[in-house]
Order: sequence, then structure tokens, then C-alpha cells
Amino acid sequence: MKKLDKICIIGLGLIGGSIGLDARRRRLAREVWGLVRRRVSIREALRRDVVDHATLEPEEAVAGAGMIVIATPLSCMGEIASVIRPFVASGAVVSDVGSSKRCVVGPMEKIFHPRAHFVGAHPIAGSEQSGMRAAHANLFAGAPCILTPSGRTDRSALKKVAAFWRSLGSRVSLMSPREHDHIAAAISHLPHFLSAALVNASVKTLRHEKTVLDYAGSGFKDITRVASSDAGMWVDIGMCNADAILCALEALDEQLAILKKALRHANLPTIRNLLSSASTVRRKMNA
Amino acid sequence: MKKLDKICIIGLGLIGGSIGLDARRRRLAREVWGLVRRRVSIREALRRDVVDHATLEPEEAVAGAGMIVIATPLSCMGEIASVIRPFVASGAVVSDVGSSKRCVVGPMEKIFHPRAHFVGAHPIAGSEQSGMRAAHANLFAGAPCILTPSGRTDRSALKKVAAFWRSLGSRVSLMSPREHDHIAAAISHLPHFLSAALVNASVKTLRHEKTVLDYAGSGFKDITRVASSDAGMWVDIGMCNADAILCALEALDEQLAILKKALRHANLPTIRNLLSSASTVRRKMNA
Repeated sequence: MKKLDKICIIGLGLIGGSIGLDARRRRLAREVWGLVRRRVSIREALRRDVVDHATLEPEEAVAGAGMIVIATPLSCMGEIASVIRPFVASGAVVSDVGSSKRCVVGPMEKIFHPRAHFVGAHPIAGSEQSGMRAAHANLFAGAPCILTPSGRTDRSALKKVAAFWRSLGSRVSLMSPREHDHIAAAISHLPHFLSAALVNASVKTLRHEKTVLDYAGSGFKDITRVASSDAGMWVDIGMCNADAILCALEALDEQLAILKKALRHANLPTIRNLLSSASTVRRKMNA
Repeated sequence: MKKLDKICIIGLGLIGGSIGLDARRRRLAREVWGLVRRRVSIREALRRDVVDHATLEPEEAVAGAGMIVIATPLSCMGEIASVIRPFVASGAVVSDVGSSKRCVVGPMEKIFHPRAHFVGAHPIAGSEQSGMRAAHANLFAGAPCILTPSGRTDRSALKKVAAFWRSLGSRVSLMSPREHDHIAAAISHLPHFLSAALVNASVKTLRHEKTVLDYAGSGFKDITRVASSDAGMWVDIGMCNADAILCALEALDEQLAILKKALRHANLPTIRNLLSSASTVRRKMNA
């Protein structure tokens, strides 16, 4: 991509911080700025080299930036967008990294139109960890990044955002916000809520948390690892994408109904089929 | 533990092979023998150093062994027990590594009584991999191993099996076969079936397997890793422990019902509570 004068990242957590690290390492802009909420984060950001400059001042952060990436939790995006809007350079490209897109793209387009061009983006990267401490270089290398243009998306801005993510090593693909939310619900949001539900169910079934902790093996730990995530971000996702998650839950309920019936009737072929079809698919993924 | 003259391991897969490796490394017996089904496994076992001697002949394998560990799939245990019974040394200790215990302990006690003493055991170790190739030293170090004595269990044999597993580094605990099956259903069997159901549900929801493969992130991969396991062993577990798995499924259903209602009504506090209570428990486990 063409080198920018200034990139501004709003929110330097796991995703924002990792973008900063890579943008600097790959020299995607002359200056990488970060907008943070707490003074202590300025020092931390500079110490960790995630940005060239960090500030608490929205105007200072976004002024003159050709690209602005909003990397805050979903529930803060509307407010921060309204705060920075007066200071955004005319023609700037504004993007985000939110895990749910219908609730972001429409409102953001309205806020920034016509001064700047908004393009929704969702890099599928990260882990159960969060915060700047968890940020690391090359987080996006080889990972999917879904861009979600709408009918109103500026094509030139879309190209810039696609080039930006490709520069970070992402596998970029395009789809509507609705299709994104459908896919994200099935392979990210429902699995996350299911993992949490399983932890809670195991404590209920075994009555004592200690029993779960004493006997959990590597399988249980793998399945429930994401459940150790910070709740806040996932509460937002649940609220934003509830309908799609409920739809994904219906498909899961169907599978569980098949399982229950098979267990009740000792239906060996059905149990085998359930396990082996899942195994066939899962083995096609890397570890 | 007191050094044995001969240990015999029946079945040299991930668990049996790993027991052999550690038993040899730690010199728990003068001779470690393995009974295998295929001639090619004899060569592989010797090449991988998992046993001192391997054979296809039950009599040769078990004759003179003070401890015999049956490490075959659950569905083969009854048959192999009947085959070896005539050759088992009087007073020998026979144990197993099955993931379900009610279906093992009673039948095995009947088969071996009064010639030898059976003690049920379940080391909670292993992974989604299987077979001798996946066997490795120190697999059991720090991992739980549940022994499941019944009213008929010989106390001296129980002590020997406990000492054996402690020698391999396991954290040994004792409980009834029923209690074991209840715990295993909640923290191992249900999670496994759930992981498989989630893979199948995601393919159904997204219609194309390719979409799942293209967009699955680290969370989905963690949650579904165990679903790549070989189906056979888990079919056995499902058949053996169906009632306890169904009971654990009820607790999960309750959690999913709470989740659904909260998503439908945008009940933020309930969603937060579900996620944060799971996160609190999961963070108490190591990674």
C-alpha cells in the first residue's frame, strides 16, 4: 500500500496494540498515533513501541490522519466516533475491528458521512487474553480479515483498507455486514457462549468448583480456554449479534437433540456418525 | 513402589505406549511386556522403546506378570480379559485405563476373581491424538488418575495400583465407579460430544464446510480440537456412560436456556453474569 503520513489507532488493546506494532515495523505510515483513555497507557504504549505517539486528546490523535482505526469495544464506538468527527481530516478513511458488523457499519457511515469514508473490518485474530500487554507483532499474519462494505461504501476507501490489512499479512475477504454476522455467530460468538455455558454447567453438575478444577484434563481446558476471556467485550458482542447467535444456537440444538436420542437408545451408528463427521471436518484445519 | 519382575501392558496406543515408556525409564519392573494385535506393532514398539518385549501371544505376554494393565478401547476389554484369564499368574494385579468405569469394574472383577485382583483406573491424560506414535514420556506427570475401588476390591492390590500411578507422576485419587462416571461425563465426555456437535452445527449453519475452514479462528480451533479425535474410542465411551452424559447434558441445557432468554430479551446483566462466572472459574485453571 501507499505509505501514509499518519495512521491513528483508537484504543491500544490486544488488537489496536498489535496493529500499531505491525504498522510501525512495516513502516506503513510516517507516524503511528494512538488515542488512549488513561495517562498510564501513554507511557505503556511508548515503552512497548506500539505507536510513535500516544495521547489522551482526540483532536491531536486524529488531526491529519489519512487512516483512523477504531479498536475500542463495540459499546464505545458510537461515542468515540462522535467525539472525533469534528477533527477528522476531509477524505480520511475510518475503519474499525469490531466482531459484529451490522451494529457498527450503518451508524458509523451516518456519523462520518460526508466528511470521511467508513469501511467496516473484522480481523479474526486474538485470543482469550486482552489489553496492550497481550499485543504482539504478526498477530494478523495468515489470519482472515473480513471487510464489510455496504451500498454506500466508497470504493477507493475500501481498496485502501484492503491494502492496509494485506500489508499486515491478513487474508482479506469481502461480504455484507449481514453475512459477516451470520458467519461470526456460527464460528466465533456461539462457540464462545457455549464454552462459558459448559464451564457453568460443569460447576452445577459437580456441585463444587474444586471438583472441576481437580479433574479437568487437556480436552476440557482446550474447550473452555476462551471462556477465561474478559466478559465485557463479549457482552457487547452478545447484545449486538443476538439474533444471529440465536439462529446458530438452533442448529446446535438440533445436533444435541440427535445426540440425546442416540444416547437414550444406544444408537451406535448415529453416535459414530456424529463423531466421525465432526472429526473429518476438524482434521482439515490446522492445529 | 516395590520393583516388579514383570509388567504387561495390553494395547500399546497413546496411553499404553506412554505407560510403557515411563515404566521402562523409571525402572518399575525388570521387564515391561506389551501385547499387541498386529505383527507390525511389535517392531514399532521396540523401535520406539515403549516396551522391552512385545508379542502377539496372550500367554507369553501375561505369564508371570505381577501387574497387567489393559489399555485397549473399552469395547475390547471383555474379550481380551477372557482370553488372558487362563494365563494370568495367581495373585496378579490387573488394572485398566478406561474412561468409563461402571461398565468395566463389575465385569472385570467377575472375570478375574478369584485368581487375580482387578482395580479400575482412569488416568486423565492424552489428547486428540491416538496410537503408539502419539505416546510420549511424562504424559502422566501432574495429571489426575482416578482409581475406582468397589466393595470387592482387594486393598493390597489397590495400594499397588496407587503406588504404580504415583510412580508415573500422577495425582491419584479414589472414588466409586459411579462417582467417577458422573465426574467424567461432566468434564470430559459431554465436552467431547459438545465439541463434535458444534463442528457439525457450524457446517449446517454455514452450509459449506469451506466457510467454516476459511474463517475459523483460534477460539473455534481450541473449542473443537478434541473433535478431531478418532471416533471409535469415543463411541465406546458414549455407549458405556450414556446415562451420566445425558444427566450432564441437562445441566448444559439449563445454561443454554438462560442464555437464549437473555439474548432474546437483551438482558445485559444476565449475559454478563453468565460470562463472568465462567471466566472466574476458568482463570483458576492453568492454560
